[in-house]
Amino acid sequence: MKKPSRPEIPRKAIYRLSVYLRCLQRLKNNAIRTVSSEALSKAAGVKSTQLRKDLTYFGQFGTRGLGYDVEQLSIMISDLLGTNSLQPVILVGVGNLGLALLLYKGFEQEGFEILAAFDQDTTQRNKPVKQPIYGMEKIGEFIKRNNVRMAILTLPVAATQEVASTLVGYGVTGILNFAPIVLHVPEDVTVNNVNLAIELENLSYFIQH
Amino acid sequence: MKKPSRPEIPRKAIYRLSVYLRCLQRLKNNAIRTVSSEALSKAAGVKSTQLRKDLTYFGQFGTRGLGYDVEQLSIMISDLLGTNSLQPVILVGVGNLGLALLLYKGFEQEGFEILAAFDQDTTQRNKPVKQPIYGMEKIGEFIKRNNVRMAILTLPVAATQEVASTLVGYGVTGILNFAPIVLHVPEDVTVNNVNLAIELENLSYFIQH
Repeated sequence: MKKPSRPEIPRKAIYRLSVYLRCLQRLKNNAIRTVSSEALSKAAGVKSTQLRKDLTYFGQFGTRGLGYDVEQLSIMISDLLGTNSLQPVILVGVGNLGLALLLYKGFEQEGFEILAAFDQDTTQRNKPVKQPIYGMEKIGEFIKRNNVRMAILTLPVAATQEVASTLVGYGVTGILNFAPIVLHVPEDVTVNNVNLAIELENLSYFIQH
Repeated sequence: MKKPSRPEIPRKAIYRLSVYLRCLQRLKNNAIRTVSSEALSKAAGVKSTQLRKDLTYFGQFGTRGLGYDVEQLSIMISDLLGTNSLQPVILVGVGNLGLALLLYKGFEQEGFEILAAFDQDTTQRNKPVKQPIYGMEKIGEFIKRNNVRMAILTLPVAATQEVASTLVGYGVTGILNFAPIVLHVPEDVTVNNVNLAIELENLSYFIQH
């Protein structure tokens, strides 16, 4: 279960590759076949030097002066990110936020499928979502049977650490956590935190200073 | 409407101050009055050298060897972040995600009040939320009357830039954007982006490498 080594590409660069991929997809939708580093960097909101540096992870490619091949670059980035095939994801905690994420269409478009949701509260199970909602007692078997590696946690603070540790025990190595809490996980597990109140608080500072 | 100068505290440090504030609030709830920099940094998931550096923005305070006064430090951070009084916020785009954020109780607990929501689609107006949902034609007057500076945008990609520019024209200077698009705004406006698919994509990379 251990990863062989730490990734060499910094996390920030991985985020930027995701943004480039979205820009490239928009170009593809508009039947645009090549793009200059200046145009792509502008669309992505980064400096063109940054873009060129990020793309050196893929080695040399493209024709000098003609820019990047939109299709080729999209495939290379998707391959690296592992989003060329649908990745199975589970969601734990079917409150308002969890429910909204189950209804959100953006994930599947981007290569992720929320297979099922889990909640301790069995009254949650009749929600109008296409995914099945199971009790927590089924989670271990489900993860193993479906080879799930990624979980979205939309749980109250008090429950989040315990659930995270349980999931890690079953083989989950990537957690998207929405609770305002610092999760303690083994080194080979990646946690990305989305804290909506902290994002607003951050804005609140900047609108005043 | 222009801010006098760029803030001196880096954005990352502002995020960390928000995390410290949450840890301090939990200590306060447990009737703990003082905390060492080691304990607070561990709870916040940062190095203690980082914590001490971040707190130098407040100058010298606390008693050597006794740690930080939980109450005093909470107040200093809240004052800086501007969350001691309830900040008015509006939300634009009442789809699934927008609706979930309207129902989310975490914002008010943290000092933010979503006063009203706006949507072009008038059939959205009968949703079971306590905030009024208005048509877009009312947004300008509402912002001015309520002195709103912050907006949450949960809109489709195609609508987001235009709405953002409109809001900025009415005086909004802080935008929390959920659409996977790079917004172009004047320099004195702060945009924080939350892109849920990109967070998953980032995890997807790390669970494979």
